[in-house]
Amino acid sequence: MGRSQATAHPDVVIVGAGIAGLATAWRLCLGGMKVTILDPNPARAATWTAAGMLAPVTELAYGEAHHLALTMKAAERWPSFAEELEAAAEHSIGFQTCGTLYAALDAGDATELKRLQAFHGTLGLESSILTATETRDLEPLLSPTVRSALIAPGDHQVDNRLAGAALITAVERAGVHIEHAFVTALDGGASWSAGRDNLSLPGFSKSGGFVSEAPRIRVRTDDGSFEAPIVIICAGSWSPLIAGIPDPARPAVRPVRGESLRLGPGSGESLAAARQPLVSHNVRALVHGRPIYLVPRATGEIVIGATSDERGYGTGVLAGGVRQLLDDAREVVPGIDELELIDTSAGLRPATPDNLPLLGPTVMPGLLLATGYWRNGILLAPLMADMLASYLLAGEQCPQEYSPERFSTPAGSL
Amino acid sequence: MGRSQATAHPDVVIVGAGIAGLATAWRLCLGGMKVTILDPNPARAATWTAAGMLAPVTELAYGEAHHLALTMKAAERWPSFAEELEAAAEHSIGFQTCGTLYAALDAGDATELKRLQAFHGTLGLESSILTATETRDLEPLLSPTVRSALIAPGDHQVDNRLAGAALITAVERAGVHIEHAFVTALDGGASWSAGRDNLSLPGFSKSGGFVSEAPRIRVRTDDGSFEAPIVIICAGSWSPLIAGIPDPARPAVRPVRGESLRLGPGSGESLAAARQPLVSHNVRALVHGRPIYLVPRATGEIVIGATSDERGYGTGVLAGGVRQLLDDAREVVPGIDELELIDTSAGLRPATPDNLPLLGPTVMPGLLLATGYWRNGILLAPLMADMLASYLLAGEQCPQEYSPERFSTPAGSL
Repeated sequence: MGRSQATAHPDVVIVGAGIAGLATAWRLCLGGMKVTILDPNPARAATWTAAGMLAPVTELAYGEAHHLALTMKAAERWPSFAEELEAAAEHSIGFQTCGTLYAALDAGDATELKRLQAFHGTLGLESSILTATETRDLEPLLSPTVRSALIAPGDHQVDNRLAGAALITAVERAGVHIEHAFVTALDGGASWSAGRDNLSLPGFSKSGGFVSEAPRIRVRTDDGSFEAPIVIICAGSWSPLIAGIPDPARPAVRPVRGESLRLGPGSGESLAAARQPLVSHNVRALVHGRPIYLVPRATGEIVIGATSDERGYGTGVLAGGVRQLLDDAREVVPGIDELELIDTSAGLRPATPDNLPLLGPTVMPGLLLATGYWRNGILLAPLMADMLASYLLAGEQCPQEYSPERFSTPAGSL
Repeated sequence: MGRSQATAHPDVVIVGAGIAGLATAWRLCLGGMKVTILDPNPARAATWTAAGMLAPVTELAYGEAHHLALTMKAAERWPSFAEELEAAAEHSIGFQTCGTLYAALDAGDATELKRLQAFHGTLGLESSILTATETRDLEPLLSPTVRSALIAPGDHQVDNRLAGAALITAVERAGVHIEHAFVTALDGGASWSAGRDNLSLPGFSKSGGFVSEAPRIRVRTDDGSFEAPIVIICAGSWSPLIAGIPDPARPAVRPVRGESLRLGPGSGESLAAARQPLVSHNVRALVHGRPIYLVPRATGEIVIGATSDERGYGTGVLAGGVRQLLDDAREVVPGIDELELIDTSAGLRPATPDNLPLLGPTVMPGLLLATGYWRNGILLAPLMADMLASYLLAGEQCPQEYSPERFSTPAGSL
């Protein structure tokens, strides 16, 4: 498909080229749709700051057992997705079946891990508790003060920055047009009126086939506009800021800021002794109650994360966040002091009221969401992209529990 | 003076465009010499990483009282130098007569400050001890755990990065040619032989006037070469790595690494509450015996430094260094946690065996040094540039105690 043709008459405009938007664009394009994706900085923001853990077991929180069906299925989707993406982009994305080791620093932390392992047991999840000696047999460079650990052999990782870069390559090769533009507003015109009657998707035949001669939504950017019958918002925390979305369709997302650090042996005249990662598993820990993780890349780099706070849309890196991450990570793996601090970054997790994603059509005809993936953006993106593609290409409904409708309010009530 | 003329037949080639080389180039050029200065990255390296304290009193170490005549004179030189530089570059360099407050965190730190103040008293230096209450009256945002402080009203600061940028502008306007090249070797040819007989400077008449028809030294770079009768090495820690310098003339300098951090209110959608600096003095502290400083800029930025270690020539920023600086700085000014971490950097202080500079001619005819300024590069540069200019333009000898000869050894003895 020629790029100019794709630009001129796309079937779908996707707002946001993070991993959610890129994965969705890829699946839709492979399914035969003409896709334009709009983002001033593709594969940056939260996709860039993430650590890339694919960890449904150790990421599980009490009270969120109902998330588990989703995250486990999403994790199962990753190996084949990674294989297909690496083939399409012709480079590695660092998918590693490394397992996760969750370490406890004090007696309270150790008690908490035991409770967590019991919780896993009730859900049939694979995890077990290791003694201090067993833990250090697996990871000799952990601090001698580590008291015990939980091991979850099924919690893996991908290099999220490599995956983002690979997706850009893959979608462009598939014919997606990426426009480096900042979306300011949607204009659905007079075709929209509030109410459930309008939930049928414009452009669909009864048999599930897609018909592109349908009412169009105009997407305005900082320097132009695009039109398509289908618009998908994948703009993470920024999704609700787009003007022109009627209140009942407005994405129920808020930003939860987090910092992450990249440490490594450095380049050139290196100060670091080791070129190998200091640990071989994803290492999580409770450090006197505070959670921290260290994710080792094959390159020797270690990603350390993540802080969590709600301060609006600022993405500056706070000194206090860096301090806390370095202090706590060093409690777990003292050797990180001797690595170079290569990169600091802050991102905004798109949180929803129930911490589940927003996937599928809204009450505004033609407007869909694929966002709100919360702490699991990298993990969920391939599965969510499949689900949305099945909906748009074959008319299969998205799961009702992720429907954006669950947070929609009658027009004018906000 | 035309640039091509300056390039073709310089009177002086200066190796290194840190603050030492730039200040020297400026004074020589204003005195009528044609100067070419070689550096791949002018005003970076240690000049960039420094904090810009002009602090002879609080920088003084026991056993180095004999440095005081030098550093006090260097500090006296700064106000007029700053004024002249700002006029030449037509922008501020952030020279501030802010004084330095030196805080003690525990009883041991407080005892140490009392000893230091007594030492100042024996040398006639202006400093006094403040109670905890007096300290917080001056700096309300210091930690409530600060027990006492020493105040040195004469210890000031300059924004070293602005000063570096201003010097680049000033020297270029004065006609200095800056060549972005990396120096690899000198070639003094057959004119050099070991021994004190050769200390007379080529190109000088007996009356002190400079004659440019003299034997030339060739300076080889990564992509060419330059020739001049006078070559001045101002390459900081890298000075001894230049090939072709005979052993007895080789600069007695070694690299002492240090990290510094820049924190500030950030730009754009800021997370930081305050746009004003958290402190108004240079704040130094002993934190359970470890020294730290926080230097506030008028912009709201605070420079925090500095670690110190010897690990060769690597200039990576170590995680452990950043951690220590953030931990200790927060003990003194808790509010820094809420500032953004804008910049991390590491530099190499050029240390000499006696911590005094290397200034003046070497045993290699035509080869001079202006380096080895140790922890005081920003402070010393204007005075050292004056002294070297007086030598080259008027034949006034540089102080014997800074002569590079004091570390020279007979040829072949190394």
